Amino acid sequence: MPVVATVSTDFYQVPLPVVLTDSTHGVIPHFELVTVRVEDSDGATGLGYTYAVNSGAEAFAVLVDRYLAPVVTGEDVDRTEHVWQRMWWALHYAGRGGHATSAISAVDIALWDLRARRAGQPLWRFFGGYDPRVPVYAGGIDLDFPVEQLLEQADRFREHGFRAIKMKVGRADWREDVERVRRMREHLGDGFPLMVDANMKWSADQAVKVARALAGFDLVWLEEPVIPDDVAGHVRVLRDGGLPVAAGENLHTLYEFRHVMEAGAVTFPEPDVCNVGGMTVFRKVAALAEAHNLPVTSHGAHDLTVHLMAAAPNRTYMEAHGFGLEAYLAEPMRVEDGVAVAPERPGHGLEFDFDALRPHRIGGTAA
Amino acid sequence: MPVVATVSTDFYQVPLPVVLTDSTHGVIPHFELVTVRVEDSDGATGLGYTYAVNSGAEAFAVLVDRYLAPVVTGEDVDRTEHVWQRMWWALHYAGRGGHATSAISAVDIALWDLRARRAGQPLWRFFGGYDPRVPVYAGGIDLDFPVEQLLEQADRFREHGFRAIKMKVGRADWREDVERVRRMREHLGDGFPLMVDANMKWSADQAVKVARALAGFDLVWLEEPVIPDDVAGHVRVLRDGGLPVAAGENLHTLYEFRHVMEAGAVTFPEPDVCNVGGMTVFRKVAALAEAHNLPVTSHGAHDLTVHLMAAAPNRTYMEAHGFGLEAYLAEPMRVEDGVAVAPERPGHGLEFDFDALRPHRIGGTAA
Repeated sequence: MPVVATVSTDFYQVPLPVVLTDSTHGVIPHFELVTVRVEDSDGATGLGYTYAVNSGAEAFAVLVDRYLAPVVTGEDVDRTEHVWQRMWWALHYAGRGGHATSAISAVDIALWDLRARRAGQPLWRFFGGYDPRVPVYAGGIDLDFPVEQLLEQADRFREHGFRAIKMKVGRADWREDVERVRRMREHLGDGFPLMVDANMKWSADQAVKVARALAGFDLVWLEEPVIPDDVAGHVRVLRDGGLPVAAGENLHTLYEFRHVMEAGAVTFPEPDVCNVGGMTVFRKVAALAEAHNLPVTSHGAHDLTVHLMAAAPNRTYMEAHGFGLEAYLAEPMRVEDGVAVAPERPGHGLEFDFDALRPHRIGGTAA
Repeated sequence: MPVVATVSTDFYQVPLPVVLTDSTHGVIPHFELVTVRVEDSDGATGLGYTYAVNSGAEAFAVLVDRYLAPVVTGEDVDRTEHVWQRMWWALHYAGRGGHATSAISAVDIALWDLRARRAGQPLWRFFGGYDPRVPVYAGGIDLDFPVEQLLEQADRFREHGFRAIKMKVGRADWREDVERVRRMREHLGDGFPLMVDANMKWSADQAVKVARALAGFDLVWLEEPVIPDDVAGHVRVLRDGGLPVAAGENLHTLYEFRHVMEAGAVTFPEPDVCNVGGMTVFRKVAALAEAHNLPVTSHGAHDLTVHLMAAAPNRTYMEAHGFGLEAYLAEPMRVEDGVAVAPERPGHGLEFDFDALRPHRIGGTAA
């Protein structure tokens, strides 16, 4: 059986095409990217990546290079679950989520890519495809946009094929949030799926108040009303606020997802394949959501996630995120009439333009 | 007001005097140490450290150097809580515990050290001292010791002044655990405080079974019977197993401690100042335990922790751990008749022998 021969990394700080802001992370001038390349003893390869919104990703590269690579090297490439457990326990003491699962994610993604490429199948088929056509929404990062710019962005999203849009809320004055949502709903018309995202801005009480004020605008969900650690707060917002609640981009383990689902704290679980522990754990979270009769949405990394959503019977809208990674991809995902189609290329089918990335490279071990 | 001028690190892999094993982490030939030095604009200094049981600590150094140092530099040295919040949110997206809080811990410890040194007070007084005399127990890492060696180690602990001992359980055959505890109890005599530590070895069912088999040996606590994520499992072990449960070395946030305390999952919360977020969070966990009418114990780093325990009215036995850091400290903690006395030296009073550490240095930014 082929075994893992080499694991190597690149660490980049990639300038954003537009400097982003949201209610919690402040100004974000670049995003951080760590790519992982895996090669097995037959020369087959796999590619994974993970990222951080604004900081911390150099730690991912270090965790992969110094601690995960030795644990993964020499392992049977098909025993993904075994390799995942080895990685988890190698970093468990200080890890258990946090930067550990982001590092594990990148390796896990590369290993699944390698395996599906060996099998000559796209990942969504390798996972037992449900439906390659995945509904998507455009994730706007637009908290500080004046209303006109917000509506123009919505028009651009529609021109690019999107049929669902998420906008940020969490302005210093919450009445501005309500007014901005009102304008957006008026602009989009009734029935157009619209989500809002508070990025952990509020207390549960504040969130309930704003949620009630937004009740008339037929929102698909209110995302991250409070910090992820406040599970009881989520439950209150969901029940007393009257809006469905999405959360999960800041949950890093299967156990955290179980906690929020069991507590009735979330309507739309939204794991991120790059920080939850890779494809291995994303699929478990999707199954857990199914067991709770909940849909699964997603955060970030849509080019990878489209395969996972295409394999999940309970998938709802997938997020298409605005980090501008498209500029560095050979064949970015296309959206038509609100739908992305999982590609038929082997593995995840993603190819980075490493030459274009080179000016932003800070470190790593890949040749 | 003085502000933080520089933050620098050293990263070491320090060989253990005796190679350690436990039921989960396997063979541990060295521990990893990251020291953090902080200097303020007046030239006052503070020293912090954190560590990992077997892997991951290079990520702590990277997190401090690349991401925390810029956020901390220039901040008012007395606004420890403000600095802590800045660090937390700087690493929040991928962080929220895990390696993030270990990195934060080392900086936070250095800042408290600096502040107390400026004030000319030992930390335990700076925190509003309760009682400098702190009861300790010796934490044996002895799962694979033959029984004779186990009992000899207990004799050595007693010779060194210990009046409470913890031994490992979690052998492949649980009946060996029972026999070893029986021998130990017989050796120590009735009334000598004895704890056992399973290092997450069991399922809840297995833990209940072994706990019941250990019922006659008057144990102070059973530690980490199951993985930290299995909160419901802890509750079952505590209730159905009939032994008090200690847990916390793998909990990295105030929120995680709230979760286990509120669920009735733990009798002896045991935060580790080096991974829970430093002295700032350890003190909050101690207060939270007090609010739940629970004692607070500790994990690791006893030379630092003695100050926190000496300031906590609800403190019980503090762990004295066996990583052999003593060999690199100017004045290691002494134990007499079961008690350690928090020192009167300013700050935490800890001085590393950096010359002795030098051969084990792997990286870092400190000059």
